[in-house]
Amino acid sequence: VKESSAAMCSAELGEYRHFMLKEIFEQPQSVAATLENRLAGDHVLPSLLGAPDALEKLAQVEEIQIIACGTSYHAGLVGRYWIEANTDIPCHVEVASEYRYRRQPPRKNMLFVTISQSGETADTLAALEKIKENHGCMATLTICNVAESSLTRESDMSLMTMAGPEIGVASTKAFTTQLVALQLLMVLLMQAKGADKARVEQITADLRKLPALIEQALDLNPKIEVLSERFIEKHHSLFLGRGELYPVAMEGALKLKEISYIHAEAYPAGELKHGPLALVDSEMPIVTVAPSTGLLEKLKSNLEEVRSRGGELYVFADREAHIKADDSLHVLEVPHVPELLAPIVYTVPLQLLSYHVAVQKGTDVDKPRNLAKSVTVE
Amino acid sequence: VKESSAAMCSAELGEYRHFMLKEIFEQPQSVAATLENRLAGDHVLPSLLGAPDALEKLAQVEEIQIIACGTSYHAGLVGRYWIEANTDIPCHVEVASEYRYRRQPPRKNMLFVTISQSGETADTLAALEKIKENHGCMATLTICNVAESSLTRESDMSLMTMAGPEIGVASTKAFTTQLVALQLLMVLLMQAKGADKARVEQITADLRKLPALIEQALDLNPKIEVLSERFIEKHHSLFLGRGELYPVAMEGALKLKEISYIHAEAYPAGELKHGPLALVDSEMPIVTVAPSTGLLEKLKSNLEEVRSRGGELYVFADREAHIKADDSLHVLEVPHVPELLAPIVYTVPLQLLSYHVAVQKGTDVDKPRNLAKSVTVE
Repeated sequence: VKESSAAMCSAELGEYRHFMLKEIFEQPQSVAATLENRLAGDHVLPSLLGAPDALEKLAQVEEIQIIACGTSYHAGLVGRYWIEANTDIPCHVEVASEYRYRRQPPRKNMLFVTISQSGETADTLAALEKIKENHGCMATLTICNVAESSLTRESDMSLMTMAGPEIGVASTKAFTTQLVALQLLMVLLMQAKGADKARVEQITADLRKLPALIEQALDLNPKIEVLSERFIEKHHSLFLGRGELYPVAMEGALKLKEISYIHAEAYPAGELKHGPLALVDSEMPIVTVAPSTGLLEKLKSNLEEVRSRGGELYVFADREAHIKADDSLHVLEVPHVPELLAPIVYTVPLQLLSYHVAVQKGTDVDKPRNLAKSVTVE
Repeated sequence: VKESSAAMCSAELGEYRHFMLKEIFEQPQSVAATLENRLAGDHVLPSLLGAPDALEKLAQVEEIQIIACGTSYHAGLVGRYWIEANTDIPCHVEVASEYRYRRQPPRKNMLFVTISQSGETADTLAALEKIKENHGCMATLTICNVAESSLTRESDMSLMTMAGPEIGVASTKAFTTQLVALQLLMVLLMQAKGADKARVEQITADLRKLPALIEQALDLNPKIEVLSERFIEKHHSLFLGRGELYPVAMEGALKLKEISYIHAEAYPAGELKHGPLALVDSEMPIVTVAPSTGLLEKLKSNLEEVRSRGGELYVFADREAHIKADDSLHVLEVPHVPELLAPIVYTVPLQLLSYHVAVQKGTDVDKPRNLAKSVTVE
């Protein structure tokens, strides 16, 4: 981390009204710091895992199990989509409190990945201890934001996020840097498994664009502030996404829950017809993340189902998605991004939405009721 | 199916006010029919899969992928807990609309299991077609309620649920018979893999008790009808469970959503502290399924967190759970059941709860708004 970005990430409020807003706006810096000294010209440097034999270990991996809680769990779910789409390694994700208390069938050459901002999350630590006691994996790796934490000490390899201290209880920059870390891990797995070099080079080049793309997404702030007024009187919201944008919708819903106390719930858009569509009426705003990917047309038809039931739609999409706004469909234009970066960039406007809704509702944004920053007890 | 149970399962309302209530009360019969002629003295008959080499095929299985939508997806999630706890076969579950549109790493000796009441669910069928085209599995099996359906025709093996025609849009007896089918599949996998015979015999003997246990659970009906009045004015609810009771909580929440239009959401209880606890106040009733299993003490401490934040609790538990009722904690006593049967028996009171809430709210119970019985288009 350069001095300048370290200063940016200090625990002072500065010009911002809340730590959460400050931390949302720090994301170009914290993402840049998480990439810094980790990218060569056309590939990712394996040294970032802090183990001399990291690439040899990754070459043997036949299975990945990701374990996390809360926001970090959502990051893991995005990582699964990425890893399974770009490598031949099956990847599974489970919340720590479930994983630690059940029996798991034995796996061969499994990489066990924990994700935690603090590195002290009790259930995640317990899951790591369990797998180590049972010799249930070939190596352990943690994606973590605190260098001296229990998880980094107890894991074979550490992939540090360089988010700097996060004060707001609702995680923002920790989440996006976890996603960056998962991209780096995915590329390292591709390199270790001999993936196409041109593809690795392309992804590496795209990653460099990320801080600038997040800056562009932050420019939506004034528009989102205006839009957020429409949520103040609402008690419910549905968040929809498909593919790797589904966990982004989950994270968006969790933010709104955490700080605005609006009951927001996420669904993979294709599941709407199997039940949740019954909830949809004019009192239930629907938030959708819809980058122009291969799934866009499917998502559009899901949106029509919602509209025809009187639902009010808020769609975050790029211009190429060609979604037309009208009275009941509000479109917020997000910059066009490479498909693999969409989950990171689309997270930003959802963070801003929950922030502004909470501020207007007058809740304690940085310290929401009933919640602690790190869940260090079970 | 015996003549008597076939008559019970006809498409006539008879003495019941709604098909949903009739179908809830038919469950002892439909479960008995799903077990009939399938249990030998001490094991499950492999002939039920309708393929002469079924047991040889199952002996080769190294991985299971379950694909389903909506309620059937929840059945699959319970099945995963059961299979991973009782065999060495890793089991994965995914909603069909997500699975069909993404790349999956290749798997060895995978059994591909679809679950669908109608056997015509468009996304589930498409997922089956995809895996067959890619030669991505060693065998396909469907758990289905309609013998002449597309899924049964297109699958190598069929495990029929004997629920009889289900008219209510919100699935009830189809779900519990799917769970019974998943138990039968689990026992067959155990037999094929040479599991301990005494354990197989015990599970087989326990399965025979199921219709009587469901009858006992149905006796809760008058108490649940009284209790349901407390939900009429509510707009939200949280459903909590741990382990294989977590998907039961998901199904309970889905029922309440579907027919009473109350925004109910399920969480694995250990995730509460990672966000949803912020939502909890006196306006958010919390429904919990808490059989006296190994996870009970953990669940109790989750319940205390909720109480200390002013939440009103409704706990379904057996006497052995020793949960004390008071002003803000209502206990409904469910019969004590063998651990493996708990997800099936605890489903019944949650069905009754959603039914009575919907009736008192005056919604169209059998045909909830916006929903169709079978989702045969994408």
